[in-house]
Amino acid sequence: MNVTIYTRTKHFRTVAFDTKKNAVLLIEQRLLPHEFKIVATRDFHETALAIKDMVVRGAGAIGATAAYGLAQGVLAFRGDDLNKFSAQVRKVYQVLKDARPTAVDPVNAMNDVCAAMQKGRTVEEKKALALAAAEEFANEDVQHCEEIGRHGAKLIRNGARVLTHCNAGWLAFVDIGTATAPMYAAQAAGKKFHVFCDETRPRSQGATLTAWELAQQGVPHHILADNAAGHLMQRGEIDLVIVGSDRVLGRTGEVTNKIGTYTKAVLAARHKIPFYVAIPLSTIDWNLKSGFDIPIEERSESEVLGAWGHLPSKKRAYVRVANPSSGARNPGFDVTPPELITGIITPAGIFKPRDLWKQRAKLGYRS
Amino acid sequence: MNVTIYTRTKHFRTVAFDTKKNAVLLIEQRLLPHEFKIVATRDFHETALAIKDMVVRGAGAIGATAAYGLAQGVLAFRGDDLNKFSAQVRKVYQVLKDARPTAVDPVNAMNDVCAAMQKGRTVEEKKALALAAAEEFANEDVQHCEEIGRHGAKLIRNGARVLTHCNAGWLAFVDIGTATAPMYAAQAAGKKFHVFCDETRPRSQGATLTAWELAQQGVPHHILADNAAGHLMQRGEIDLVIVGSDRVLGRTGEVTNKIGTYTKAVLAARHKIPFYVAIPLSTIDWNLKSGFDIPIEERSESEVLGAWGHLPSKKRAYVRVANPSSGARNPGFDVTPPELITGIITPAGIFKPRDLWKQRAKLGYRS
Repeated sequence: MNVTIYTRTKHFRTVAFDTKKNAVLLIEQRLLPHEFKIVATRDFHETALAIKDMVVRGAGAIGATAAYGLAQGVLAFRGDDLNKFSAQVRKVYQVLKDARPTAVDPVNAMNDVCAAMQKGRTVEEKKALALAAAEEFANEDVQHCEEIGRHGAKLIRNGARVLTHCNAGWLAFVDIGTATAPMYAAQAAGKKFHVFCDETRPRSQGATLTAWELAQQGVPHHILADNAAGHLMQRGEIDLVIVGSDRVLGRTGEVTNKIGTYTKAVLAARHKIPFYVAIPLSTIDWNLKSGFDIPIEERSESEVLGAWGHLPSKKRAYVRVANPSSGARNPGFDVTPPELITGIITPAGIFKPRDLWKQRAKLGYRS
Repeated sequence: MNVTIYTRTKHFRTVAFDTKKNAVLLIEQRLLPHEFKIVATRDFHETALAIKDMVVRGAGAIGATAAYGLAQGVLAFRGDDLNKFSAQVRKVYQVLKDARPTAVDPVNAMNDVCAAMQKGRTVEEKKALALAAAEEFANEDVQHCEEIGRHGAKLIRNGARVLTHCNAGWLAFVDIGTATAPMYAAQAAGKKFHVFCDETRPRSQGATLTAWELAQQGVPHHILADNAAGHLMQRGEIDLVIVGSDRVLGRTGEVTNKIGTYTKAVLAARHKIPFYVAIPLSTIDWNLKSGFDIPIEERSESEVLGAWGHLPSKKRAYVRVANPSSGARNPGFDVTPPELITGIITPAGIFKPRDLWKQRAKLGYRS
C-alpha cells in the first residue's frame, strides 16, 4: 500500500493489540515512508524480534510493545499451575528485555505489567491483569503526549515557522508523539503554521519518518538539509524549535538527543529563537550528575558513508556516496546544555531545564 | 581505473593542455570518487560542454579551463586573415562564457588571454600569445594556491585536528586548492595532523571530492555527518576550521560559501576554535556593500530529497530517501559575518576580515 493514498484516522496507533488473535500490531517502520504496512506478531518471540530489528523504534513505542509482548506471552500460557506460569513470565520478560538491552522503556513498561499481575490469585486473573496493565501503559503514553500537546500548543502562534530535528513524532510513541504533539494540538485548534524538518543525517529520520507523519496529518512542511537551518534563521525564517529527547538529566537540565540537536540549539540561541524539548516524564534521568557521564554511542560508519533509499524501480537500495577508501566518525547523539534551552515541555507543564530538580515532586521523581 | 590504485604525482593537474593534440585535459569530476578518468576535449565546443555539464567545477579550475578553451579555439583557426581570426575569437569567447553564465572566473581568465593577443601582429603571433597567456593563467592559479599554503601552514600545529566543509581542494583549482593548501604545505613540512571532512549535504562534496583528494595525498581523515562537528567541538576534538569561499566581500569581510559554513562558524566561535577562510584574490568582491545583497541560489529539491551514489554492483544511481509526498527547501550557500572569522588566508598573507578594505592596495583592488 502506498503511503500517498493512505489516510490516517484518529483511531490508529503505532502499537496496538489484537486480543482475538493474541497479536501485537505494529507499523513496519523500516518500510516507511515508501510503503505502509501493519505487521501482526504471532508470539512474544516475534514481538521481541520486531523490537530488535527496529520494525518498531522510539522510547514510548518500544515500551508499549514490550508491555503488550509480555501480555501476549502470558496469555499464550496453557494450564493453571502458578509455578509454571511464573517461569513463563520470567522467560518472556527476559526475551523481550534482551531485544534492546540498553533501552530503559521496555523494562519500566514490563515492570508495570508484572506489578499488576501480583494482585491476581489465579493464572486466569493474572492473565487478565497483564493485558489490562499493558493497555493502561499504552493509554497513558497517549494521554501523556496529549498533555504535552496541550501545554506546547500555546507556543505555536498562528503563522509560525517551526523547526524540528529527527523524529519524536507519533511513530516513536503509541500516538501523537512529543515534539509533534504541540503541532497536532495547534492544528486541532485551527492554527496555521509551517514545519521545517531537518533531514537528520545519517539515518534521515526527519526526511523519512517526520515528513511522512506530517504529510499524513496534513501539516504543511519542507525538508531541509541539516546544513540549511542556520541560513534560514539568519534570514528570519524560523520562529521556534521543538525537538524530542532520549534522556534529560533531572539534576542538571542537560538534554541528550539525536546528533545535530546541540548545533541547532547553538544557532537558535544566537538568533534568540525559542528552543523547546518535549518529553514524557519517563525520559527524565534523576540519577546522572553530568552530561559528560552520558555514554554517546558511536554507530556504524556505513550510515555516514552512504544512504538508504528507493530506486526509480521502487526497490530499496543502499548507495555508497563517500570516497571508497575513506572512513567516518559517527556519534549517534549529543548533549545540549540547559543554558541553550528555553523550556522542557512535559505532561505536567513547561519547565526551565534548571528547575527540573526543584520541581521533581511534580515530575514523578522517586527517591 | 579504480581510484584506490591510482597514485597522484606532483606533476598532475586538475586542468592541463595537450599542445600536440590541441586538447584540454580534465579530470572527469562527476565520476569521482568511484572512478578516476581524464577526458581530453577535442575542440572548444566540447570544452564549453565540459564546463556546462560540470565535468570540471570550482572557481580556479573553470577559469583555467576557459582560458585553455579559448586558446584551443584560436589554435584551431586556419588561415592568416586577421578579420576572420577576430570573428573566431569572439565566437569562441561567447560559447565558453555561455557555458556558466553567472561565473566570473571564466570571463576574467579569457579577458587575460584576449589582452595578451592584442600584442600580436599576425595570426600566428596571436595564437602563440593566447596559449602562453592560458598557461600563465593556470600557473598563476597554482602559484597563488602555493602562497596560500605557505601562509596557512603555520596555523596547523603538529597533532592538530582540522575541520573543513565542502571542497575547496585541488579539484576546484588547477592544483593544490585553497582550504587544502595549508594542509598540503603542513604535510610537506612533515607535520602530522588529522582532517575531519563534513559530508556537506545535499551534494556531499566533502564525502566525495575532499575525502578522495585527502586519500590521494595520504592525509589521515574521517568523514562526518554535517550534524556531528558540534559534538566533536564540545568534546575538544577539533582545533581549527579551514574552509574556502565563493565570494568574500572586500568592503565588509562577509564570506559566502557552501550552505552549512555559517553553522560551523557559529559553533567554532562558541568553542573559541579558530575559523579561517582560504581564498585567491580573485574571490574578493570589492563592489557589494552588504552580505544581504548576495544572491543565494535556491537549488533543486531533488538534491535534498535523495542521494547519488554507487550500488554494490558499482553502477551509479540516485535513491529517493525522503517521504515521496514531501518537498524541500535547498539554499545552496550562506553568508558568514566577519565577527565569526579569525582570518582570511590569501596569497598576500592572512588578514582579519574587517581589514580587507584597509589593505585593498595589497589585495589587488582596482578602483
